[in-house]
Amino acid sequence: MKKIKVGIVGGSGYTGIELLRLLAQHPKAEIVTITGRKDAGTHVAKMFPNLRGRLDLTFCDPSEAPLDQCDVVFFATPHGVAMSMARELTAKGVKVIDLAADFRIKDTEVFSKWYKMEHSCPDLLAKAVYGQPETMREQMKKADILGMAGCYPTTIELGLMPLLKLHSAEKDIVNLNVSIIADSKSGISGAGRKADVSLICAEAADNFKAYGVGGHRHEPEMVQQLSEFAGEKVPLTFIPHLLPTIRGIFSTIYVRLTEKGTGVDFQSLYENAYRDEPFVDVLPTGSLPETRSVRGSNMVRIALYRKEPDLLVILVVEDNLVKGSAGQSVQAMNLLMGLPESTGLDQIALMP
Amino acid sequence: MKKIKVGIVGGSGYTGIELLRLLAQHPKAEIVTITGRKDAGTHVAKMFPNLRGRLDLTFCDPSEAPLDQCDVVFFATPHGVAMSMARELTAKGVKVIDLAADFRIKDTEVFSKWYKMEHSCPDLLAKAVYGQPETMREQMKKADILGMAGCYPTTIELGLMPLLKLHSAEKDIVNLNVSIIADSKSGISGAGRKADVSLICAEAADNFKAYGVGGHRHEPEMVQQLSEFAGEKVPLTFIPHLLPTIRGIFSTIYVRLTEKGTGVDFQSLYENAYRDEPFVDVLPTGSLPETRSVRGSNMVRIALYRKEPDLLVILVVEDNLVKGSAGQSVQAMNLLMGLPESTGLDQIALMP
Amino acid sequence: MKKIKVGIVGGSGYTGIELLRLLAQHPKAEIVTITGRKDAGTHVAKMFPNLRGRLDLTFCDPSEAPLDQCDVVFFATPHGVAMSMARELTAKGVKVIDLAADFRIKDTEVFSKWYKMEHSCPDLLAKAVYGQPETMREQMKKADILGMAGCYPTTIELGLMPLLKLHSAEKDIVNLNVSIIADSKSGISGAGRKADVSLICAEAADNFKAYGVGGHRHEPEMVQQLSEFAGEKVPLTFIPHLLPTIRGIFSTIYVRLTEKGTGVDFQSLYENAYRDEPFVDVLPTGSLPETRSVRGSNMVRIALYRKEPDLLVILVVEDNLVKGSAGQSVQAMNLLMGLPESTGLDQIALMP
Amino acid sequence: MKKIKVGIVGGSGYTGIELLRLLAQHPKAEIVTITGRKDAGTHVAKMFPNLRGRLDLTFCDPSEAPLDQCDVVFFATPHGVAMSMARELTAKGVKVIDLAADFRIKDTEVFSKWYKMEHSCPDLLAKAVYGQPETMREQMKKADILGMAGCYPTTIELGLMPLLKLHSAEKDIVNLNVSIIADSKSGISGAGRKADVSLICAEAADNFKAYGVGGHRHEPEMVQQLSEFAGEKVPLTFIPHLLPTIRGIFSTIYVRLTEKGTGVDFQSLYENAYRDEPFVDVLPTGSLPETRSVRGSNMVRIALYRKEPDLLVILVVEDNLVKGSAGQSVQAMNLLMGLPESTGLDQIALMP
Repeated sequence: MKKIKVGIVGGSGYTGIELLRLLAQHPKAEIVTITGRKDAGTHVAKMFPNLRGRLDLTFCDPSEAPLDQCDVVFFATPHGVAMSMARELTAKGVKVIDLAADFRIKDTEVFSKWYKMEHSCPDLLAKAVYGQPETMREQMKKADILGMAGCYPTTIELGLMPLLKLHSAEKDIVNLNVSIIADSKSGISGAGRKADVSLICAEAADNFKAYGVGGHRHEPEMVQQLSEFAGEKVPLTFIPHLLPTIRGIFSTIYVRLTEKGTGVDFQSLYENAYRDEPFVDVLPTGSLPETRSVRGSNMVRIALYRKEPDLLVILVVEDNLVKGSAGQSVQAMNLLMGLPESTGLDQIALMP
Repeated sequence: MKKIKVGIVGGSGYTGIELLRLLAQHPKAEIVTITGRKDAGTHVAKMFPNLRGRLDLTFCDPSEAPLDQCDVVFFATPHGVAMSMARELTAKGVKVIDLAADFRIKDTEVFSKWYKMEHSCPDLLAKAVYGQPETMREQMKKADILGMAGCYPTTIELGLMPLLKLHSAEKDIVNLNVSIIADSKSGISGAGRKADVSLICAEAADNFKAYGVGGHRHEPEMVQQLSEFAGEKVPLTFIPHLLPTIRGIFSTIYVRLTEKGTGVDFQSLYENAYRDEPFVDVLPTGSLPETRSVRGSNMVRIALYRKEPDLLVILVVEDNLVKGSAGQSVQAMNLLMGLPESTGLDQIALMP
Repeated sequence: MKKIKVGIVGGSGYTGIELLRLLAQHPKAEIVTITGRKDAGTHVAKMFPNLRGRLDLTFCDPSEAPLDQCDVVFFATPHGVAMSMARELTAKGVKVIDLAADFRIKDTEVFSKWYKMEHSCPDLLAKAVYGQPETMREQMKKADILGMAGCYPTTIELGLMPLLKLHSAEKDIVNLNVSIIADSKSGISGAGRKADVSLICAEAADNFKAYGVGGHRHEPEMVQQLSEFAGEKVPLTFIPHLLPTIRGIFSTIYVRLTEKGTGVDFQSLYENAYRDEPFVDVLPTGSLPETRSVRGSNMVRIALYRKEPDLLVILVVEDNLVKGSAGQSVQAMNLLMGLPESTGLDQIALMP
Repeated sequence: MKKIKVGIVGGSGYTGIELLRLLAQHPKAEIVTITGRKDAGTHVAKMFPNLRGRLDLTFCDPSEAPLDQCDVVFFATPHGVAMSMARELTAKGVKVIDLAADFRIKDTEVFSKWYKMEHSCPDLLAKAVYGQPETMREQMKKADILGMAGCYPTTIELGLMPLLKLHSAEKDIVNLNVSIIADSKSGISGAGRKADVSLICAEAADNFKAYGVGGHRHEPEMVQQLSEFAGEKVPLTFIPHLLPTIRGIFSTIYVRLTEKGTGVDFQSLYENAYRDEPFVDVLPTGSLPETRSVRGSNMVRIALYRKEPDLLVILVVEDNLVKGSAGQSVQAMNLLMGLPESTGLDQIALMP
């Protein structure tokens, strides 16, 4: 089989370098071009020395990148870039996988409110598919544009999907009179590779804090997907915190059950729901997931606890840069290109 | 004024060394003796080199320690030790301050269930006072035995006291049909100075996990105190997590309000409640507390957020070894001895 | 080709788990058995959850392990174990790869002095080969027993080999009247997976210290190999330090040159020496290696600086658990079994 | 006694905040004004929440700060600022303590070469005194301007002073035909509070690297002082490394001895030299200093090892922000103002 020709727009951030790491080991993909306006002319291995000897590639100016000769183009860019280039690329038959938020939120008003920009191509948005393979697989296969799920949303959507689908099917399982609470903690790479005083080691190491308590951009995306699962509007309270780790998201999710809901065997429900998924691991009863158990891998691990009769606590871990971003995007590429979904994604978590 | 004569039983753990650090700087206290069975004969500065030149003290065998000549004896020991020595000491007029759990829980059956031992002196327990100055000041002043509050409980009790006292006074402020949720995160020193594979750096650094999800010993103590504030039983869900920091606890507390409760100005309520407290800092609206802002100091900082009309989110930080243990115990000693409560506790947090 | 049958003795430490991680991804090897006396009956994925779904293997008691049916047996054990089992295994044609020190040091008196035990099979030791592929490749290919290089020694031997071989060939390049100084820093996983108070996070995180200043067990092994390269006794001063990182060794090596030596182009010397090596990367002039650039990979990266005319400073990084131990051992297995040396070792360092 | 009136120019960096922490606890000093051009109007506690309730002070524009009404003005500014303001201040009788490099290096050409700027007041520089109390006490007492020692230099100068003074007195103790090697490691706060990608946690945590290998600005200052001690030019090789800790410097110093030098009892030499110093602690033979043993305190701890007959290894730790900068500057202020040198500097290191 000929290799898939891949282009990357904006490869100098953490999702970019992670795409490079994964694609450099992918047996069926070949990176044809990578853009980086400020870094044009720089060899990728100069910026990311882990790639020395593994990838012979130089950042090029976006205007000179042969993106239209690619089969797939990943956008590892700030919000707003993918939407400005998607029309031209898809017109030429190039699949677009956006790791930013341009194609995640269906409601353009909601998008504008949270991302402070107008959506420039609502028609493409309408056809684009939300990129989360375990919950949107069939729709994704036929898409031309994927708006990949955010890092936090991946943990919370996978953590809640079986439960909310049951609620949708059987009604009255989750008590939606009170919001579902997601208390999430993310390693610092989630904030990106940027010069920001609040992110430097002397500020952020040996420290812990909440942020975005007043509202976080990942909320509308999560409410959209969770409500889709549940068949009704799902109220969600989301409080993100900043962990002094490099990678890793840990979401502690609190769900109030109805009386009917208290009778469900959630352990079995989840094990069945994810039985055939290569990247979702439902831990045995009593297990405690750790972020390091997924470090560098595309796995999500989930544990379930019943605290009081009416309270289900769901613990979910992922590597925010892999399953939360670049890895899930490679998984999506595999899906789009008809490859086995786990191709090139067999990295085992680095532990210790 | 003559200096207070202080004894420390079991000084080789983290609460012990923190007592040493604080008392070595205390202008009105003098450490007369420190016990350490295994370490008898060892100079404290040999074990804790930060004390070199600051404290000329040698661990002595408990059987040889002149504890009965002290004004106050701190127990920085495993659970069960203080109760075995309290009768003899208090009979001689020595005040006992236990940093462990022997005198925290009034119900001996509850104590036995969680700590897997019988209580050996229920009569003393009945007279002992729970040691948390901001909520129990007047009772503490007259006590002979103080069972100092645990590290997590201090954050959660201070984070909820004004609210629950209002609920007690005005009724129907907090919706107690659903449990209050406390999602807490603790730095690793909270697990103590012990040889345990799960605590070594290669396991616990760059990692995050929950633990004690099935039930944690601090729960009964918190329910006891919170219910006392509220005037009725307060249901609490407590999920502790292990942070890869050395010190610091961060509690994110979720409280459902009644319709009446949604009308309360909680910011003012808390500012008024803690206005005169030297060690409780209610942050201005919109602030985000960080664990480093209290590192090494006896401060607790609290921020309040209203997420939905009926959900109050309370963020609380403390240094688990200071306000969560040794510092609060020195504060308690000051109270018992009639000193200004903040004597010797003016350390400013180490930041960065 | 049939898969290589691999046995692992003592798989519950960090070199053991790292062997599991690497071998689980090795296309030509199959782990047949893993021993663990204390952990017999435990599934490896229960201890190391990163292996869930990737390796279906249970620790078995050493007495029941079918080690003699393996092609290769790795010893990830404390010193002294491999030598007790090597005779029986090699007699049955099983290749022995010892990650500990039993077969590193040729002089049994030196071995006894540093490791506090008699060598039980000096005849096997005499035939065993020191396991460091880049410097001992040809001898290794024919060996039955490999005593794999230690973690620190790998950095220092690779950092000095081209220079000392030149010295051997041309004489009078290095001033050996003064010792070569190796100031090395190791991440904490180098101390092993053991319950030791000095290794717990609250002690070792946010801290830095030297250790073994009076003498470290890796010294005799290094002097043996360096002297072999140089054709004369090489005096070495080795000061190890403990880094608050999980993985990674950084060695800063200071070499005094003779006047003749100052004329050498060391950059070219090293680039030529390692041109064809897949796992040794000589960085361009002016580069600064970082431990994270090799995290999780089998690479060594080297940079050279001339500080004064007569002082060469050599900076070397490796991942102590991969190139410093398990990875280099898999590389050795490939060599023994006639596989391309880099089979199964193409992991790219995890960065960030 | 009236309190010393203190001004701080440039208080928003790490040396600034550390001055604030120490001076807020100083019983004899009062901060009158603090400047911060960008931060004018901001309360210091808004930027540094550890100061909430402890310091009621607002950054003011440099043009409006009543610096000339102070007894002492600290410059916690980039290089070049203190020299532009020192003449005016000293003319009005204000003592100037510069934490940057403007008044450290006596040779203006050397200064220009390393700091890329002309010295604007060589006459003041000639009269200024290098600020390192243990080695320059008497000269400092009479100075109007102090150019405080850098963070690395403090460790290396204190680590070598007794030895080099002996060499000066008795000749032929240290073999100065080869350079003294200082392999130093600094916590990341040494790089300052600045927005720099290379300092963010996801880059610098769990990592270790050398930097400034080609030459570091602290070299000329160290050579100047060491040569002063030795009575002859001291060749020095200095290699700094970046530690993934917040605070702390660890210098490993390698000194070659002459044959005569090998006969010296260095342990006694150092213990005698520093016997009366409150902030220099010579550890007992065989001790291993740790950076955490000085975290947050003004102590330097030193250990001495003889590795080979002719090699002395000196290990030195300090907190770079305290003894390496702000603490030593407060110590200098005490000296200038006739106060006991340790006034306000009795913080015990935070351990764990």
